Amino acid sequence: MSDTQERIAASFKAQGLMATLGAQLVSVADGEVQIELPFSTQLSQQRGYVHAGAITSIVDSACGYAALTKAPSGCDVVTAEFKINFVRPAIGERFLATGKVQASGKLLAVCTGEVRALSGTEWKVVAIMQATIVNISA
Amino acid sequence: MSDTQERIAASFKAQGLMATLGAQLVSVADGEVQIELPFSTQLSQQRGYVHAGAITSIVDSACGYAALTKAPSGCDVVTAEFKINFVRPAIGERFLATGKVQASGKLLAVCTGEVRALSGTEWKVVAIMQATIVNISA
Amino acid sequence: MSDTQERIAASFKAQGLMATLGAQLVSVADGEVQIELPFSTQLSQQRGYVHAGAITSIVDSACGYAALTKAPSGCDVVTAEFKINFVRPAIGERFLATGKVQASGKLLAVCTGEVRALSGTEWKVVAIMQATIVNISA
Amino acid sequence: MSDTQERIAASFKAQGLMATLGAQLVSVADGEVQIELPFSTQLSQQRGYVHAGAITSIVDSACGYAALTKAPSGCDVVTAEFKINFVRPAIGERFLATGKVQASGKLLAVCTGEVRALSGTEWKVVAIMQATIVNISA
Repeated sequence: MSDTQERIAASFKAQGLMATLGAQLVSVADGEVQIELPFSTQLSQQRGYVHAGAITSIVDSACGYAALTKAPSGCDVVTAEFKINFVRPAIGERFLATGKVQASGKLLAVCTGEVRALSGTEWKVVAIMQATIVNISA
Repeated sequence: MSDTQERIAASFKAQGLMATLGAQLVSVADGEVQIELPFSTQLSQQRGYVHAGAITSIVDSACGYAALTKAPSGCDVVTAEFKINFVRPAIGERFLATGKVQASGKLLAVCTGEVRALSGTEWKVVAIMQATIVNISA
Repeated sequence: MSDTQERIAASFKAQGLMATLGAQLVSVADGEVQIELPFSTQLSQQRGYVHAGAITSIVDSACGYAALTKAPSGCDVVTAEFKINFVRPAIGERFLATGKVQASGKLLAVCTGEVRALSGTEWKVVAIMQATIVNISA
Repeated sequence: MSDTQERIAASFKAQGLMATLGAQLVSVADGEVQIELPFSTQLSQQRGYVHAGAITSIVDSACGYAALTKAPSGCDVVTAEFKINFVRPAIGERFLATGKVQASGKLLAVCTGEVRALSGTEWKVVAIMQATIVNISA
């Protein structure tokens, strides 16, 4: 495992929220990170679907770590802001968030993200995100 | 307690994620709802602050319920999309999310939200949101 | 030319702002529309680049018309909201906005958009958008 | 007029797009700037209302200049990104955009903006914005 992958795996373990939600780091590639979340009633909104906040949490982390793969050496990252559209109810057995870097500089990275839900054998996009990540001194 | 307040309290109890995060419904007024979240290491990001996803979850719910106070009778609401800026690190003992309706119609409501953090005796804004909520048949 | 293409061409001609900016409708396909804008000093911001507002205007129209290709028969569309990141200075001889439908229903469509700038023979992405479009009675 | 006000007035004059749209700088205060736009058919969308892009252009400039009043000495500003909701059709004789700084640091400012439309003697909010502005070397 590369330094970046190790570093992201260690950072992910340090995110208490990811453990609380039950999320797992699935893959780390240059400019692209995936995080998975199994369904749980502990993540629901009032109608039993997964809450927008849980969906948002995993794709925010995926975008942040994607940005980290492109950040200057010695930097950590924080989310400046994001926007997310929920395009279908978050129904499914598992949810896979993918964050991708679209542009990155010394200071900022712009990422897009999506969350797909698995129902039976079919994956459907349930949310799409556009995020701005800031590099900070680690 | 009015019908709307009762209905929102019941809906909030049905949100598994709010219990998982430790969030509490604080107040329900016409067009404005507040939700509070005590600090917990189970909500952290990698630096120990509260994760953007947890902050987002409570202010998303606050905006959604604020919209519900203005929704036509017999409607439920779902979040179509939101955008959130994180303006300071989410450090504090408690976090108070406020969602307010800025405009509402038959179909859509537009809300603004903010989250303030309490450190000692000082409240500081840590995040601001702008959200679009859709009315759906209950 | 299909009915939809004719209808979008007619609607584009009725947009006074597109003529004022000097924008042209380039292509209309199912779920995807392109609009082009030549550089002009009349579109500048304070440093001589094209103003974020001009870039935004063409990609907003491109997203709206992309949504219109998917809208139920007899509907017009209006923009409910969008978010746009400016990832490079808008420098170039020409700017090409592409709007694509990512998800569409009876009521709402969610689109992504991008604007690329042509400098010499190289196209570079200068902005990316995520938009929510509402179907209304025509 | 203070240095900041003079500087913003000069910068506004250098924005070709503001002249093309017919916009005028109305007021510059610490952390808050207003820009006005009279109605013109040259700014219309397909139904005759003012195009979302024109509304967006003036409130983007208002937010940018509001941020400039808070920027470190010797800095210029550029828009990193914004999100805007259109809450009513942009109908009216005049449109007043107000940009306000909500938080500002060495690197970034977060602003909120709104555009109100004047019809007869009544002002109504037609759009609200949330924007991230970056300080750059002038």
